[in-house]
Amino acid sequence: MTTKKQVAVILSGCGVYDGAEIHESVLSLLAIAKQGAEYTIFAPDVDQHHVINHLKGEPSNETRNVLVEAARIARGSIKPLSEYAAKNFNALLLPGGFGAAKNLSTVAFDGPNCNVEAETERAVRETHTAGKPIGALCIAPAVIAKILGDVTVTIGQDEGTAQAIEAMGGNHMTTNHGEVIVDEANKIATTPCYMLDANILQIAEGAENVVKAVLEMA
Amino acid sequence: MTTKKQVAVILSGCGVYDGAEIHESVLSLLAIAKQGAEYTIFAPDVDQHHVINHLKGEPSNETRNVLVEAARIARGSIKPLSEYAAKNFNALLLPGGFGAAKNLSTVAFDGPNCNVEAETERAVRETHTAGKPIGALCIAPAVIAKILGDVTVTIGQDEGTAQAIEAMGGNHMTTNHGEVIVDEANKIATTPCYMLDANILQIAEGAENVVKAVLEMA
Repeated sequence: MTTKKQVAVILSGCGVYDGAEIHESVLSLLAIAKQGAEYTIFAPDVDQHHVINHLKGEPSNETRNVLVEAARIARGSIKPLSEYAAKNFNALLLPGGFGAAKNLSTVAFDGPNCNVEAETERAVRETHTAGKPIGALCIAPAVIAKILGDVTVTIGQDEGTAQAIEAMGGNHMTTNHGEVIVDEANKIATTPCYMLDANILQIAEGAENVVKAVLEMA
Repeated sequence: MTTKKQVAVILSGCGVYDGAEIHESVLSLLAIAKQGAEYTIFAPDVDQHHVINHLKGEPSNETRNVLVEAARIARGSIKPLSEYAAKNFNALLLPGGFGAAKNLSTVAFDGPNCNVEAETERAVRETHTAGKPIGALCIAPAVIAKILGDVTVTIGQDEGTAQAIEAMGGNHMTTNHGEVIVDEANKIATTPCYMLDANILQIAEGAENVVKAVLEMA
């Protein structure tokens, strides 16, 4: 019988401009494994907001599904987010990428007035109500703030996003590469990653630090 | 002026079943940066052999381009492989995934009688002729053997693929997780990664070890 801590990871697609940021996702999984925990990957079974051609940086006339594309990062080992139950896990982790702001929520388009995808909102609320920790990278902390309101998070140094988080009822703390803000009362740990102009070493550092903070609360 | 060693990385799409294996790709990039070198990402501008729905593991009726999909892993910072010139780099690295066996070559379908994508063949031959090292992970060593013939490589322990490599004129060495085979005469370093039943920690170890071996010869 395993005694390893179990972390549920929510992916929002596969690719920084329309889905989960791939480096943040893989380096989060690596950080979980390196720190002796195990991960299970989930994604909502919904269509992406749109598809971006990542070579041109332009919208493409295609339809892709968040769960199906996230399965690329998960090597097929993924579950629909509707199957997530907080009672089966010690912690929840949300990597970033525009998928968090376009698929898990509409924060990229609607700022503080955004909507949140139903299963994402349920998963975050259920985990928070159960008193279990939640980690979020990059833009994903804004989704946590939209759902939970009065929590303290960081998305780095972007003033517009920081103001949106404050308008949601959250508190924003400015951070630099690899730094983690821990809201101990709410068991929320957040780090900016690619919300700053970062390199892959800084993403690995941010992922390791936020996973460490989450596991210490789990 | 930078004195960092420059590594060109060839990706074959984005996703283990029809493109570049994502963990191997990201952890190769991380290993290059951790070891003080810099990477530039390339991919051939050709259609994928097919598209696999990674949730169901079944073909999907779509057309996707290798360069456009690889751009997801590269965060848009990628060049067509036709722009690769060995003189601008110290080393070449090929992560694995079925993309190496379906897009960079047809080894997944035709075994030792496979074809190799034209720019991939040119890039490997040009690098080898220039006396610069080439690293390859997972199934990609079979592509190197098809192009160069009498080289010593590993894809782990899969007997069918090992026999195909021998039929191409190559020499196969059996290896376990994280092990690297170095063909010093040809400056080829290879490691099995997900050609074995591996976890993400073992992929990180394999990527670090093969990048180390490549940089030592660069």
